[in-house]
Amino acid sequence: MFREKIKVFDCTIRDGGLINNHDFDDRFVREVYKALSAAGVDYMEIGYKNSKNLFSEKEYGKWKFCEDKDIAKIVEGIESKTKISCMVDVGRVDVDDIKPRKETPVAMIRVASYVKDIDKAIYLVNNFADKGYETTVNIMAISRALDNELTEALNQLEKECRANVIYIVDSFGALYQESTEYLVKKFKSILKTKEIGMHAHNNQQLGFSNTIEAIIHDANYLDATVYGLGRGAGNCPLELLIGFLKNPKFDIRPILDLISKEFVPLRELIEWGYIIPYAITGMLDEHPKAAIALRNSDKKENYREFYESLVVGLD
Amino acid sequence: MFREKIKVFDCTIRDGGLINNHDFDDRFVREVYKALSAAGVDYMEIGYKNSKNLFSEKEYGKWKFCEDKDIAKIVEGIESKTKISCMVDVGRVDVDDIKPRKETPVAMIRVASYVKDIDKAIYLVNNFADKGYETTVNIMAISRALDNELTEALNQLEKECRANVIYIVDSFGALYQESTEYLVKKFKSILKTKEIGMHAHNNQQLGFSNTIEAIIHDANYLDATVYGLGRGAGNCPLELLIGFLKNPKFDIRPILDLISKEFVPLRELIEWGYIIPYAITGMLDEHPKAAIALRNSDKKENYREFYESLVVGLD
Repeated sequence: MFREKIKVFDCTIRDGGLINNHDFDDRFVREVYKALSAAGVDYMEIGYKNSKNLFSEKEYGKWKFCEDKDIAKIVEGIESKTKISCMVDVGRVDVDDIKPRKETPVAMIRVASYVKDIDKAIYLVNNFADKGYETTVNIMAISRALDNELTEALNQLEKECRANVIYIVDSFGALYQESTEYLVKKFKSILKTKEIGMHAHNNQQLGFSNTIEAIIHDANYLDATVYGLGRGAGNCPLELLIGFLKNPKFDIRPILDLISKEFVPLRELIEWGYIIPYAITGMLDEHPKAAIALRNSDKKENYREFYESLVVGLD
Repeated sequence: MFREKIKVFDCTIRDGGLINNHDFDDRFVREVYKALSAAGVDYMEIGYKNSKNLFSEKEYGKWKFCEDKDIAKIVEGIESKTKISCMVDVGRVDVDDIKPRKETPVAMIRVASYVKDIDKAIYLVNNFADKGYETTVNIMAISRALDNELTEALNQLEKECRANVIYIVDSFGALYQESTEYLVKKFKSILKTKEIGMHAHNNQQLGFSNTIEAIIHDANYLDATVYGLGRGAGNCPLELLIGFLKNPKFDIRPILDLISKEFVPLRELIEWGYIIPYAITGMLDEHPKAAIALRNSDKKENYREFYESLVVGLD
């Protein structure tokens, strides 16, 4: 029996954009949108709404800014029930750039925040909710959050924040299923009026299983990406999640086609997935930046030395 | 706190041999043995003890037969507490080929069996136990076992069989963590005098998480392979398992070195890991043979057609 409340949330273009400076071309993004629509995926996150005062259009592709006119070109002429989402980082958005929902093709805005910035996240979410958007708060680096600070943040979110969904974000791919269970239960126990979301990274090949674990304990918003695309180790693979879910509205076949035609060739050009340095940062509960630097160096396969450098650095 | 009873069991050469007709060269096998020994891995399975009356030495490499003299060349001069294991398939072994343990470098013999062949497996195990070996029964294709037949087999194993360990083998990579939990609890409830083992395949990126799930519910024998090497999607990656376990006797660093030096180059020559056709056979609880055939054909990336052919074939 399927749980109707479950929403599958694709963030292929947004999270994948962290590898290529958000520079996917329109043809590729339309193919993704078409396949997600045909597969019955509930949401597609297409990029970030970043301030052009902070980031240059010369350095970044259009999905770093997600202008309405650019999104309109993607969705035009494609029959779809898939809603469009954009992500916003605390401190990187001009609130006035966000127009009322009625005037844009965007249905949801998600605010990514560390626990320490939760007041800023609440301010942003409430502004976007006033403008008519569905909203979420995505609590990043959850594996590093101090439990008492997390408790306080969750209580604030429950009382002061109009977000529909609060996400657990395993930024470092460090969670095992027991920690996922603990966190989902904790979120549920405080956030009585909100849905729980799960965004898992795949450093230790646990992205999919942590997502299943979150489902078991009643998280209903599930992030995934096609073929696991994403920075470093990538994310929970959408095709596995759809293969697991039982709601007949989902159809895996358009996603299989998309992988064959677009993602297998893409994987020859850019690197993501199960790569030992990312597994190591996951095990050690570290940000992947050291692994990214290693993979861009001529020591890219020196795994032991990399491991030892991180362990020494942990004092 | 670590659980001292946990044994890490490497089957890189044995399971990996299914890709290359058991034809790894001595230098490579010695490097693996050296690294496993330095890492504190408890067992290394080096191949099969198959009857030369059934299989030709012209077609298969030496690890299909595992003669004592060949094993002796591998272990010679390497300081190690890692015990050597060989696998035996019901119906493919000459019992008289198995000499008393004292006369060989082999410490353990594992018998792979389907539920329906459990009487034959018990006969073999008891013969090997009489000869002084540690023994296991590995119940293959567990995701397809009928529950009542499995119950009967487990009761027989508890009463009639001298194996030290009974393994759950997820041959098709079809188990999710809820099914793993169910099976480990079932095995524990019947097999009061034996240890439980877990051998997980990685079709759906769940090899590692199903192994963790088995640990949570008290399985103590844990199979893994270096870099996940194995036929098709491969196995639970040894490096992730060692990264997870807390017993200070384990050292991940020799395994990281081994992957850098031997397994990254090997992956350029032979294919294993997260590959969509194997994910599909896992989702559908099918033997990977159709996926293996697809990967050897010119339709190797036609995922949708492959999926549809299997679904149609399921009537």
